[in-house]
Amino acid sequence: MAGNSFGEIIRITTYGESHGKGIGTVIDGCPSGIILSSEDFESEMARRRPGQGAFDTPRKEEDRVEILSGVFEGLTTGAPISLFIPNRDARSKTYEVLKALFRPGHADYTYFMKYGHFDFHGAGRYSARETAARVAAGVVAGKILGPVGIRVMAYTIELGGIRAESFDMNEINDSPLYCPDSKAEVLMEEALIKAKAEEDSLGGIVEVKVTGCPAGLGEPVFDKLDADLAKAVMSIGAVKGVEIGAGFDAARLKGSENNDPITPSGFRTNRAGGILGGISNGDEIVIRAAVKPIPSIGIEQDTIDREGRPSKIRMTGRFDLCAIPRVIPVIEAMVKVTLADHYLRFRAAKALYGGQDERRR
Amino acid sequence: MAGNSFGEIIRITTYGESHGKGIGTVIDGCPSGIILSSEDFESEMARRRPGQGAFDTPRKEEDRVEILSGVFEGLTTGAPISLFIPNRDARSKTYEVLKALFRPGHADYTYFMKYGHFDFHGAGRYSARETAARVAAGVVAGKILGPVGIRVMAYTIELGGIRAESFDMNEINDSPLYCPDSKAEVLMEEALIKAKAEEDSLGGIVEVKVTGCPAGLGEPVFDKLDADLAKAVMSIGAVKGVEIGAGFDAARLKGSENNDPITPSGFRTNRAGGILGGISNGDEIVIRAAVKPIPSIGIEQDTIDREGRPSKIRMTGRFDLCAIPRVIPVIEAMVKVTLADHYLRFRAAKALYGGQDERRR
Amino acid sequence: MAGNSFGEIIRITTYGESHGKGIGTVIDGCPSGIILSSEDFESEMARRRPGQGAFDTPRKEEDRVEILSGVFEGLTTGAPISLFIPNRDARSKTYEVLKALFRPGHADYTYFMKYGHFDFHGAGRYSARETAARVAAGVVAGKILGPVGIRVMAYTIELGGIRAESFDMNEINDSPLYCPDSKAEVLMEEALIKAKAEEDSLGGIVEVKVTGCPAGLGEPVFDKLDADLAKAVMSIGAVKGVEIGAGFDAARLKGSENNDPITPSGFRTNRAGGILGGISNGDEIVIRAAVKPIPSIGIEQDTIDREGRPSKIRMTGRFDLCAIPRVIPVIEAMVKVTLADHYLRFRAAKALYGGQDERRR
Amino acid sequence: MAGNSFGEIIRITTYGESHGKGIGTVIDGCPSGIILSSEDFESEMARRRPGQGAFDTPRKEEDRVEILSGVFEGLTTGAPISLFIPNRDARSKTYEVLKALFRPGHADYTYFMKYGHFDFHGAGRYSARETAARVAAGVVAGKILGPVGIRVMAYTIELGGIRAESFDMNEINDSPLYCPDSKAEVLMEEALIKAKAEEDSLGGIVEVKVTGCPAGLGEPVFDKLDADLAKAVMSIGAVKGVEIGAGFDAARLKGSENNDPITPSGFRTNRAGGILGGISNGDEIVIRAAVKPIPSIGIEQDTIDREGRPSKIRMTGRFDLCAIPRVIPVIEAMVKVTLADHYLRFRAAKALYGGQDERRR
Repeated sequence: MAGNSFGEIIRITTYGESHGKGIGTVIDGCPSGIILSSEDFESEMARRRPGQGAFDTPRKEEDRVEILSGVFEGLTTGAPISLFIPNRDARSKTYEVLKALFRPGHADYTYFMKYGHFDFHGAGRYSARETAARVAAGVVAGKILGPVGIRVMAYTIELGGIRAESFDMNEINDSPLYCPDSKAEVLMEEALIKAKAEEDSLGGIVEVKVTGCPAGLGEPVFDKLDADLAKAVMSIGAVKGVEIGAGFDAARLKGSENNDPITPSGFRTNRAGGILGGISNGDEIVIRAAVKPIPSIGIEQDTIDREGRPSKIRMTGRFDLCAIPRVIPVIEAMVKVTLADHYLRFRAAKALYGGQDERRR
Repeated sequence: MAGNSFGEIIRITTYGESHGKGIGTVIDGCPSGIILSSEDFESEMARRRPGQGAFDTPRKEEDRVEILSGVFEGLTTGAPISLFIPNRDARSKTYEVLKALFRPGHADYTYFMKYGHFDFHGAGRYSARETAARVAAGVVAGKILGPVGIRVMAYTIELGGIRAESFDMNEINDSPLYCPDSKAEVLMEEALIKAKAEEDSLGGIVEVKVTGCPAGLGEPVFDKLDADLAKAVMSIGAVKGVEIGAGFDAARLKGSENNDPITPSGFRTNRAGGILGGISNGDEIVIRAAVKPIPSIGIEQDTIDREGRPSKIRMTGRFDLCAIPRVIPVIEAMVKVTLADHYLRFRAAKALYGGQDERRR
Repeated sequence: MAGNSFGEIIRITTYGESHGKGIGTVIDGCPSGIILSSEDFESEMARRRPGQGAFDTPRKEEDRVEILSGVFEGLTTGAPISLFIPNRDARSKTYEVLKALFRPGHADYTYFMKYGHFDFHGAGRYSARETAARVAAGVVAGKILGPVGIRVMAYTIELGGIRAESFDMNEINDSPLYCPDSKAEVLMEEALIKAKAEEDSLGGIVEVKVTGCPAGLGEPVFDKLDADLAKAVMSIGAVKGVEIGAGFDAARLKGSENNDPITPSGFRTNRAGGILGGISNGDEIVIRAAVKPIPSIGIEQDTIDREGRPSKIRMTGRFDLCAIPRVIPVIEAMVKVTLADHYLRFRAAKALYGGQDERRR
Repeated sequence: MAGNSFGEIIRITTYGESHGKGIGTVIDGCPSGIILSSEDFESEMARRRPGQGAFDTPRKEEDRVEILSGVFEGLTTGAPISLFIPNRDARSKTYEVLKALFRPGHADYTYFMKYGHFDFHGAGRYSARETAARVAAGVVAGKILGPVGIRVMAYTIELGGIRAESFDMNEINDSPLYCPDSKAEVLMEEALIKAKAEEDSLGGIVEVKVTGCPAGLGEPVFDKLDADLAKAVMSIGAVKGVEIGAGFDAARLKGSENNDPITPSGFRTNRAGGILGGISNGDEIVIRAAVKPIPSIGIEQDTIDREGRPSKIRMTGRFDLCAIPRVIPVIEAMVKVTLADHYLRFRAAKALYGGQDERRR
């Protein structure tokens, strides 16, 4: 009931808070025989870590993932995989001075209303640190998807109002902002420099492309693939909107424009974003997430204290200017976990109920 | 695993298909002492029914909800509520001729790929008729929310590319399209007339406003209120995008613009859409859903048959021009079910774990 | 949270009460392609029905199961199967006079303490009528188990203190008490006649034998096969004890006596009752359930009324003398549902995780 | 689906194996404000530990429980509690020689049949070490039950066929076998000495008494309190039978003997074992568990190897002679977890649905 688990066949449970010993996740239902070691987590954990770019807060977290169970002689055993990421940098003091005031745009107010305090019930569960456990789980999910050819890639298509106009897959990994358009990236960086000078912050849009997914993932009614993806992505704190394929643009199209004609070699277009009636159609799955600007800014803001008295708040310290790019591995992780779960449901259903062979574009 | 249930404390399970005896839902976990009779469902079921407006398909379904259990002498007992809606109009024959061809934009192709046939596994579960059970469940959820002052209202803010520019609450219920802007509604109707002439279809955007919701609903990590709302709304077949508050626009705002300043009398703005950190903040909750154009159109389209051979399809018969307004009670129902579930989780958590008194704007 | 569902891949949800329109169950997760019609339920429903033998209460319930969904042209479709059993014989009046007093051995007292009333919350959910929905679900579960050779048979090994000493499979179905020992059955019937004369009631022990179950069903930790069987059987109102294989007798054996030696042709003995470490070993599964005497008796008993004042109660009317044999199809049904669920979990796990081929004795 | 979680509001997930870094549990849904430290686990972990008595195997495990999350400044926060117990004594080598042969009475055979190997999928999950995580979770559950006056105590009422004839609560904690009858204990110890000399092992019966439990815990249909207790206790490897109150003896009683007359001061007898219709009645809850003899014995036994060839096995090393007393804290822990979960469900239901005030004898 407390909502710290996600998934059905692959079920991840996360725990931990920034002020404690560390954070972690238990992954139940992972198939056996998968090669898994601490090293497998390094690159993804590093991508999520703050302090990588010129524009990010230079905190140094070395997120080393310890495998506490579920792996024997380098292979998963099918038993629950327990992953633990010790905290290196206890930050409880830094935020202490702010305790008395609700930070606008943060969850301080809602947690206080829900739990009656800042520190106790749920303390630290809304910290961005919680997402490290998701990224670790995503690495395991990726190990399920990889061998069957399902690849998930997230990248920045908009930041600070600047839209990527071209799409060059090769640009993405070279780009500090994971932007597929090198020209747009330059403008995005300028926008970040300007925001930094203004002590303000920026938001953006992340797109996720899933290739190699067979037709048939997703259940007919409530557990539609797009419904579960929407929940997965929206469960990330910074995300305020999710769309599939043409998404909100589909609302402005006519049926004749939005329908994807079917040809012997597949769908001619992909406005559906790879999902029809909640079930993958074998085409690329395309998801977009709206990422709000970081609420921590240096500009003075109106707020209230715990007694409801009006006050001003001006946040100092080193904050990220934009949740992008750090949120990108988190979004990828949640998409991977959702797909791995649905892929196993799909495989299980095929075993139990029959169905077509796997086909993908 | 088959995904026909939704919710945790209030858990609805739906069943039924258009070709059978009827459809229904079992609602487990509804509190006792709620006045409930068949009549309570009439108006909502009528709103979902096709054939009401000039632009809708004139099929006549009289959706009468029978209460099979859970109510004694007019009051809910706390035992599972079973609701059944008999089918009056078996439509299996109408669609028979199309069986051999995959209709573009429909789930024919994905169901065939998943289950290996059209008719058997899951047959009819992707029919719009399935949503009647959701609407019935939403009526019960509304009976939980009503007495505590939580009201859910959905309306059309865009149709066929025409945007409502003004918001007059009173217009909504008088308007066949549930549009809060009477001038925009005229243009929307013209667009529908034009689409009808072209044998094409239209999409739009539905906005949902929740008033009276106390602060504190939602869980910190995966079961955030916005995450569950996103899943609920995205699980409706026609919906391709969901956003909360400023949503995708938040991606273009700066932190200083997007943060809602807090004052002793509440939040000065509501870009958050009533949800911060996944938990309701006591302000109005604002959700928007992108509704794709109806895929059934009279215009000839390219498709393939079951053997993968290219073909042309031209759908005849009487189809809706737009999922709006029929989808509106369905969206409302899913929001109500989600909120009722989270409201009961919130109340239960308060009993178990303590917390603040209910506060709402 | 309200506990009206059972199972994981096959998930049954029951609803309904004796005072309403009927009772029913929704079965989610049943494979497609299974032949199913209303007639399939007749014999099992008849076995559970009161008024069959000389010793049973002669109420006449004709329990006809209506299939509301999930079956198309005689075959299950994989969509949820909704089964409804209308009430013919509303009995609310009969019990009305007793309302003011708590019947010893019944759940009147605990329901009153839990819900604050007899009639509302949960009313009728503790009626034996609720078990009709379980029997119906068991028929569907049996249709999953039958084709793979898993057979479940329950029979009476003790009644009123009389123990069956011999075991003749053929006797069971000819026997009104489903007793495998025709001599013991005569004594059991005499015991029932004596109890009837004394206006008292009797209990007994039901044994269940499962043949044809492959090795490998059950999960290692909490969802052990015996754990889930214990829950399933103990969830039947009349059952006060459950044991597997040697059961309580195993407590008196030495390791050398209780271990089943393994030979190339299988286990030499079966004290384990077919389950080792929570997982089926391919041998016969043997479960025993202790059935308490029916609490409704004509003998005067001490009780209290709702205000806690002492009183005498003497129940009149036509009551069963013993839950056996009516409880037998209910026990069988719960065992079948549990096995069908674990069989599908086993098959799904095999598909996802690999493992040995199916082997059974 | 893999069955490593238990409970609904309090949900425990366990992980870990004897050959790895350690074992642990994540407890989701624990209320906030509970005082909790590593020291709280010491006494219970010590009771479960082997090597305490003259008759137990002298392995030395120092089971120190590390709190990885969910506690802040000594109090639970309501966030998931992660507990980790490092392994000190890796025992993989000890058992290596036996790998090729299936040990009778152990789960070797069923795990091999299910997973196709001994070491990988699920390896070590059927080790008794797994129960250490249960005991740790039981300590947290006990912290929920204690303040509301619910106490759980398990003790030995039979061992090696010797039955405790008297019941002196004070004897229990002084007794190495947790036996409430000091005379019987002497005989039990003699039986253990004899079994040791014979290189055999013994079983027994553990009784659990729950005092202070209010009326109203348990749900009407499948999640009856006794059903969930039966599952909880039967999920312990050594347990082959569970009964409530009179249990199997109830099968031999008449209704007039088995019904507990109700008086203004409570039930006159307690054959029901504190549970009526699946719901606690405020009286003491009495549960009995049949514990099988330890399968590891020095006596030569028949078995087969992986290729199915007949063989002899003679187990050497230091094994426990009887699962009692080590299984006692495990049984207590599972009862505590079940009761804590149902107590919170009860409290939540009261908040949501109303009901009577808490009453207990």
